Amino acid sequence: MKEFCIGIDIGGTNTVFGVVDINGNFIAENSIPTKKYQTIEDFIEALSLAINNSLSQISGNYILKGIGIGAPNGNYHNGTIEYAPNLNWKGIVPIADLLNKKFHVPVVLTNDANAAAMGEMIYGAAKKIKDFIVITLGTGLGSGFVVDGKIVYGHDGFAGELGHVIYDPEGRLCGCGRKGCLETYASATGIVRTALELLNKSDENSLLRNIEEEKLNSKDIYDAAVKGDKIALEAFDFTALVLGRKLADAVAITSPEAIFLFGGLALSGDYILVPTKKYMEENLLKIYKNKVRVELSGLMGKNAAILGAAALIWEEIK
Amino acid sequence: MKEFCIGIDIGGTNTVFGVVDINGNFIAENSIPTKKYQTIEDFIEALSLAINNSLSQISGNYILKGIGIGAPNGNYHNGTIEYAPNLNWKGIVPIADLLNKKFHVPVVLTNDANAAAMGEMIYGAAKKIKDFIVITLGTGLGSGFVVDGKIVYGHDGFAGELGHVIYDPEGRLCGCGRKGCLETYASATGIVRTALELLNKSDENSLLRNIEEEKLNSKDIYDAAVKGDKIALEAFDFTALVLGRKLADAVAITSPEAIFLFGGLALSGDYILVPTKKYMEENLLKIYKNKVRVELSGLMGKNAAILGAAALIWEEIK
Repeated sequence: MKEFCIGIDIGGTNTVFGVVDINGNFIAENSIPTKKYQTIEDFIEALSLAINNSLSQISGNYILKGIGIGAPNGNYHNGTIEYAPNLNWKGIVPIADLLNKKFHVPVVLTNDANAAAMGEMIYGAAKKIKDFIVITLGTGLGSGFVVDGKIVYGHDGFAGELGHVIYDPEGRLCGCGRKGCLETYASATGIVRTALELLNKSDENSLLRNIEEEKLNSKDIYDAAVKGDKIALEAFDFTALVLGRKLADAVAITSPEAIFLFGGLALSGDYILVPTKKYMEENLLKIYKNKVRVELSGLMGKNAAILGAAALIWEEIK
Repeated sequence: MKEFCIGIDIGGTNTVFGVVDINGNFIAENSIPTKKYQTIEDFIEALSLAINNSLSQISGNYILKGIGIGAPNGNYHNGTIEYAPNLNWKGIVPIADLLNKKFHVPVVLTNDANAAAMGEMIYGAAKKIKDFIVITLGTGLGSGFVVDGKIVYGHDGFAGELGHVIYDPEGRLCGCGRKGCLETYASATGIVRTALELLNKSDENSLLRNIEEEKLNSKDIYDAAVKGDKIALEAFDFTALVLGRKLADAVAITSPEAIFLFGGLALSGDYILVPTKKYMEENLLKIYKNKVRVELSGLMGKNAAILGAAALIWEEIK
């Protein structure tokens, strides 16, 4: 009989989900607006309805093997979302239990970046790799560490916050309240901060000066870099320097075979990949040199968040 | 029938070993001078002879379950010592194979700090803990990371070099050829460098001024700190600041339940423990605060290197 999983990606604005088979094929896909639901009960009700609608599109008999969820501050050990700053539901939300009561199948939860790492392992570029790191370069910097074929969850389920290792103790203010976190430099928003700093402290001509400061985004910087814009290229170089240094530190801890970049800023391809790899190599301890691949995620352009969430279940029941 | 393991700790100067049971009791213990043997073959010959001598002291029948080795640059995956700067034997030395040919039992090898972590798990303070880090503060800073009950070896067997994450890219020259590595600050030799810097840049009276610069060691600094010496206390404070900051970064990666300090500098007890814990907490991301124990190793005063090496075997055959 056919077997499917549900992969759910809970974001601050929208919750998207898909019905996925073991090969990563989407049978159905839909979304609901996360922000609209003030209580977790209303959210679960709406989500269950939407999922049941999607499941009803499957022809013939099938088995629903489970539900995987990627969510901010998702705790793998407890199946809870804990104190997520960008969601309406405060405190500790037992979301895995709530969905299990609706669908009577295993429900597994982790944070977005860990789900992305699982997706990379099951569906992406890490199919045969047992030690790797996935870095998501979006609004922030998320990371999933895989050691010997298993996601590193840590004793409390919250491991893998490479975005919040400190690059500069006196550096940029971070949303977490501290200063100099890696994600304030190496992320889609970080490179914008860098470009604005560079624009403000030089008189260099730049295509970026044609864009309002508030509207400048990482895609603009990429477009300018492609046209050879000096400031844009310098912004990529500095971003890569910071990221490369901290990746070298991360390598010294888990010694991965590969590091995969994903997310908005990774769409810049070689503009971020090549200098990041260069600076990482420059900063690696000798025994690690020329051993660690730095590549784009194998899930670029795919709905990796849903695939990763679904992959949680395939891994769990393996 | 009684069961024993051999635990071997290969150091640059001496190689010490013990015959150990599953409860960590030493049946026999001995050592040979590592430096004396120019070829690995001569070393293995001498070591085997010494081990056989020790085994002959066991009364009654017994089973030798295996041999565990802690060695600098020890590669767990291959059973080799690779390019160890402080040993006579250059290149890649297949030490596990060589000993297996002599004793016909499993031989497992890793680096010193990973062995210490294994010892902590089997015999020490981490018996019931699945996620922890052991930090050895000796001449350098070694580290063993344990995730979900398993040592993190990495794809190449060389994971866990926290001593070589960078604290300050423009900082102190490290033996590895790079600048600002954590171990140039947080180690028995690092605190001596700090004390000398403090002495040189101030006129403050200090007991440490009575000791020749070349002879100053971490024990002297501890003794002075106990007597309230300002420079000595400041040296501990700065060492702890650096270590605390980098431990906070490490927590963000593997989210351990506990961090255990071991080695020469850890003998300073609360003088290093209390400020390190304070600075770590100050630098932790909110979700990790007040969750991570920082304590002395449960093997302080014991021959942890041998116990850890023996523990490798008990874990392997479990």
